[in-house]
Amino acid sequence: MTHYFSSDFKLGILGGGQLGKMLLYDTRKFDIQTYVMDANPEAPSRLACNHFETGSLMDYDKVMAFGKKVDLLTFEIESVNVKALEDLEALGKNVYPSAATLQKIQNKAVQKRFYKSNQIPTADFEVFSNLKNLKTAVSEGKISFPFVWKSSTGGYDGKGVSLIKSERDLSQLPDAECIAEELVDFKTEIAVIVARSVSGEIKTYPVVEMEFHPEANQVEYVLCPARIENSLAEKARALAHLVSSKFEHVGLLAVEMFVTPSDEVLVNEVAPRPHNSGHFSIEGSFTNQFEQHLRAILDLPLGSTESKTNSVMVNLVGDENHTGDVVYKGIENIMAMPGVTPHIYGKRETRPFRKMGHVNIIHSDLSEARTMAETVKSKIKVISKTS
Amino acid sequence: MTHYFSSDFKLGILGGGQLGKMLLYDTRKFDIQTYVMDANPEAPSRLACNHFETGSLMDYDKVMAFGKKVDLLTFEIESVNVKALEDLEALGKNVYPSAATLQKIQNKAVQKRFYKSNQIPTADFEVFSNLKNLKTAVSEGKISFPFVWKSSTGGYDGKGVSLIKSERDLSQLPDAECIAEELVDFKTEIAVIVARSVSGEIKTYPVVEMEFHPEANQVEYVLCPARIENSLAEKARALAHLVSSKFEHVGLLAVEMFVTPSDEVLVNEVAPRPHNSGHFSIEGSFTNQFEQHLRAILDLPLGSTESKTNSVMVNLVGDENHTGDVVYKGIENIMAMPGVTPHIYGKRETRPFRKMGHVNIIHSDLSEARTMAETVKSKIKVISKTS
Repeated sequence: MTHYFSSDFKLGILGGGQLGKMLLYDTRKFDIQTYVMDANPEAPSRLACNHFETGSLMDYDKVMAFGKKVDLLTFEIESVNVKALEDLEALGKNVYPSAATLQKIQNKAVQKRFYKSNQIPTADFEVFSNLKNLKTAVSEGKISFPFVWKSSTGGYDGKGVSLIKSERDLSQLPDAECIAEELVDFKTEIAVIVARSVSGEIKTYPVVEMEFHPEANQVEYVLCPARIENSLAEKARALAHLVSSKFEHVGLLAVEMFVTPSDEVLVNEVAPRPHNSGHFSIEGSFTNQFEQHLRAILDLPLGSTESKTNSVMVNLVGDENHTGDVVYKGIENIMAMPGVTPHIYGKRETRPFRKMGHVNIIHSDLSEARTMAETVKSKIKVISKTS
Repeated sequence: MTHYFSSDFKLGILGGGQLGKMLLYDTRKFDIQTYVMDANPEAPSRLACNHFETGSLMDYDKVMAFGKKVDLLTFEIESVNVKALEDLEALGKNVYPSAATLQKIQNKAVQKRFYKSNQIPTADFEVFSNLKNLKTAVSEGKISFPFVWKSSTGGYDGKGVSLIKSERDLSQLPDAECIAEELVDFKTEIAVIVARSVSGEIKTYPVVEMEFHPEANQVEYVLCPARIENSLAEKARALAHLVSSKFEHVGLLAVEMFVTPSDEVLVNEVAPRPHNSGHFSIEGSFTNQFEQHLRAILDLPLGSTESKTNSVMVNLVGDENHTGDVVYKGIENIMAMPGVTPHIYGKRETRPFRKMGHVNIIHSDLSEARTMAETVKSKIKVISKTS
């Protein structure tokens, strides 16, 4: 087998954001050589890799040139030039997740059709090649308010998604390929991180529960485990396992799901990489999601996905009234709370609702951890230095 | 208060070995800027810091120049030019642990006298300024075989320590200032990691038990918690707490102790830094020792020292018959065991008994973890590529 540890083997990572930064903790732990490329020369992953270079991940030539330098290529963000990944595969490079997997996921219309053709339960939808066609369908009564609009490409963190309740909402949408999705009545949003190795070994993490910030449409708290019945949790893990095997992805797959009032579980969307809903695992799990991603793509045995203890993750986002050099006001107050660990992503500048870090809270009692999460939220403010 | 997170603040670390490397996981987690100096341009800490430079830690001018570039200076190894640290302090630099603390610990004769003058229980000893004086004392019957010889300076990992049973052993010692120490009859070797912050907040970790490799005189297994009575554990933690407050150190202090057959606890020696006996904390504790060291020297609140679960650490040392480019043979076998995490220090070349990494094993049942530790030991071999 290949020797990855303190060897000449080179892992390439496309994208140098916080997910890449956290992945590098584990490449350092295993002393695996890493090459990182990101468009931003100040990207969080510029440190702790063996080699960093700047380049757009959508630039075919840049990705090709970068891919040729490494032995295995992975990514921490979906916005990557898929054609380049395909051509690197054709040259015999290992790319995990594969270009084919990414292609099925990158475009939301393709992703939704994939669920449909694989009998994976998901909210009803229709695809429109442009805004005009959508408007026509609405005026003809084929689509009725309210519905959820999603841009086929380019969405993240709640961007590219809108709830459309009226003609007025409709008129403010950009012109792009999109899907109109049934507005699902759900009682809980949950997620399961699945790991699948090159050899096809699959492991699922416990179901987590996501609580959203009402205004920013971003996840505010992630609870592990989700406060749902065991039978429902088992059903969700089985569904995530099914989704994983259908995609035949290699690496991590974060499967976000809705639970309806009648305990139906519907797949919302997936991400083929470490995910915000898996950050709890850094302090909470036997194997954190980043180490698990490495194990999967290097075809090492997958680690245990059991929890050491219960946990709640709080996203640290920039205060809505602040832009500029960041200050984590009150961080010493939350660090005085037992079992509370802040993770700072290393972005110099804060902006309203920008993801700047997260805080993990571990406690044997989940409801206690949830209460602590609110205290954490109230005691720390992500503001700018000058104001 | 000072803002350390994603700010202009610069932490200087003298020494770039595995302890420095693991400390950098946590400076990255908190996005604290780091400057590292080590004599070896290929030191494990050359990555993941913001700035790396080569230089001998014993070189006064190098340490002075390095210290002036940073806001706060710490070290991951005791072999540092203390005069430079003193002069940096005189210039107003914060050095944690202080030059005064390091001076009391760096020289074992000074360290032992410190215990005596502070009524800290320790094995009886006498100091000799050179080998000739020790030989005279032996020939005059003031010191009798067997006894433990320790060089006052320069010892680590069992080097600079010898059991002297005969004139022949005596004749093979180097000429240096040394101590002759009573050979203590002990049933267990234990250690406690103590953290003490700039403000004087003190926390102790649970007592760990150290099992030594019979030949290499190196720690083979570290068990947390130690398999001793609670009352004895409390006594050891209280003693470690006392030692910490007497030294008035800032940062971590690893206190190694002997337990005698009559349950006396004697201090063997201390190290003012993260320590091998605290590696279990990376996966086992609410706050790992490296994060705790940062909290202490930055005067942040100390984190909880409680364990998430029981753990056993196994040191990975180079096989005695191998020298050359390292291969971790069988590492995939131990990674298939749940709760087993290898930590690879990033040394390219293995040598007999060289510390190359460690493996943490976590399990709710300590005796199960201890059994797994032997399996780990038997399944992985640190060998060289060529042989």
